[in-house]
Amino acid sequence: MRRLSFFLLFVLLVVTSVKAQEQQRPGQQPAPETGEKFKIGMAGYSFVKLNDLDKSLATMQRVDVHYLCIKDFHLPFKSTDAEIAAFHAKLKEKGVTGYAVGPIYMKTEADIDNAFEYAKRVGVKLIVGVPNYELLPYVDKKVKEYGFNYAIHLHGPDIKLYPDAEDVWNNVKDLDPRIGMCLDIGHDTRNGKDPVADLKKYHTRVFDVHIKDVTGNTKLGYSLEIGRGVIDFPAFVKMLRKVGYTGVCSLEHEKDMADPFMGIAESIGYFRGVIEATKKK
Amino acid sequence: MRRLSFFLLFVLLVVTSVKAQEQQRPGQQPAPETGEKFKIGMAGYSFVKLNDLDKSLATMQRVDVHYLCIKDFHLPFKSTDAEIAAFHAKLKEKGVTGYAVGPIYMKTEADIDNAFEYAKRVGVKLIVGVPNYELLPYVDKKVKEYGFNYAIHLHGPDIKLYPDAEDVWNNVKDLDPRIGMCLDIGHDTRNGKDPVADLKKYHTRVFDVHIKDVTGNTKLGYSLEIGRGVIDFPAFVKMLRKVGYTGVCSLEHEKDMADPFMGIAESIGYFRGVIEATKKK
Repeated sequence: MRRLSFFLLFVLLVVTSVKAQEQQRPGQQPAPETGEKFKIGMAGYSFVKLNDLDKSLATMQRVDVHYLCIKDFHLPFKSTDAEIAAFHAKLKEKGVTGYAVGPIYMKTEADIDNAFEYAKRVGVKLIVGVPNYELLPYVDKKVKEYGFNYAIHLHGPDIKLYPDAEDVWNNVKDLDPRIGMCLDIGHDTRNGKDPVADLKKYHTRVFDVHIKDVTGNTKLGYSLEIGRGVIDFPAFVKMLRKVGYTGVCSLEHEKDMADPFMGIAESIGYFRGVIEATKKK
Repeated sequence: MRRLSFFLLFVLLVVTSVKAQEQQRPGQQPAPETGEKFKIGMAGYSFVKLNDLDKSLATMQRVDVHYLCIKDFHLPFKSTDAEIAAFHAKLKEKGVTGYAVGPIYMKTEADIDNAFEYAKRVGVKLIVGVPNYELLPYVDKKVKEYGFNYAIHLHGPDIKLYPDAEDVWNNVKDLDPRIGMCLDIGHDTRNGKDPVADLKKYHTRVFDVHIKDVTGNTKLGYSLEIGRGVIDFPAFVKMLRKVGYTGVCSLEHEKDMADPFMGIAESIGYFRGVIEATKKK
């Protein structure tokens, strides 16, 4: 019995000392964007080929990213309130906040109605959308009704709707100031524009940003890991600071989408390296 | 028959046009370190738990890294010349150059003899080694005989040999100038030193660099993804340029070693982001 007591005491001491040592170990530093006004996130679309919420969240945890723009393959439009609550609970468990929904294509007034109701039930105040041009007055009406921000996703030369930031600006500048853009810096570049200059020009209507890199400034340019293309990220990060952007820069990773893990990590790492190295000390 | 001819002609036209379009597509940009005097590589040790050369090389290809410090689990000391040739051929296929061997621990003169003969047969002119202190005069003799550079790997407070850059310097400064150090910036930091200041002080004897990050400047600090720890990478990269370092900065990734892919990608991305953002334009 005495032997057992000694043994238990010994075990207790070892456990306590290991615990104490663990507590003393210094941990990971805060991410470089912690001190910035803007945040880093993930565009849910990056995970479309995985189509697996657990793997998506695990990937975000590994790269220490905590904001997700929710795509409907992760949370279908028809989700019940209970399903939405379960979704948020799962995100919270992984330290992730769903900050917006979209991009959502809207070809009819009914699509717009559904999107606003969906966003309201999901509990976000930002919709990333692609409304047909002729529906913009209706979007304007809904924005006034719900009080949400509406960020139009620009998509370069691939589709006819909203090729670049200038096109969005021209179409929304006379509408409610809560209608603006999700500045996709890759597609803006692929339409021959300079996303740094466009951020400067249009920042009052930039409510979301998709970060990515592209190989060229035409339709032939394709999306790849940040740092491997033609976009000037140091200049872009400096401009984010200069205009005081307070939204999220969400990585929309579109290469190797069935196995996007290393590409996502490299892109997030590069962007954070640029943030750190361009800080004024 | 005529139909078949038309069909074949059609296929030919389609194939030709697709090929032409592919050729026009702009490709990936050169890596940010292409314009630098130093290179980015991988310390083979990062792959010790994979212990799979194909996976290691595939990982290097994905992160566009082309220099490998060869560890013996990838190429055993007793490899025949044919095995060594096959190893190099496999690396070449993946665009990788084995630029050095090691780290190799050397506790006897025989170990040193073997290491130099191994390096000679492998065809590299740089050995990363950890010789017992009392064997340094023998290393000096071998360096003169073979004409190789010998980089002593420093290992922080974990082992008694060569805790930091200062210790290596003090032990080698009166020996042949080809005996110097592999500056492991993580372990140097964990021994309470500043690797940026040490690179400046000792650069004439820095023949290899291990890049990594660590959480603290004591033995309790542990290794993790570059950018998540306490090392000042912008300052380090600027110092690499200032001293004109011409060797390799090899990532020695020591976290999640059974599944190191995302950590390696994030680290390489961060380091390249810092290189790009600190370039003088």
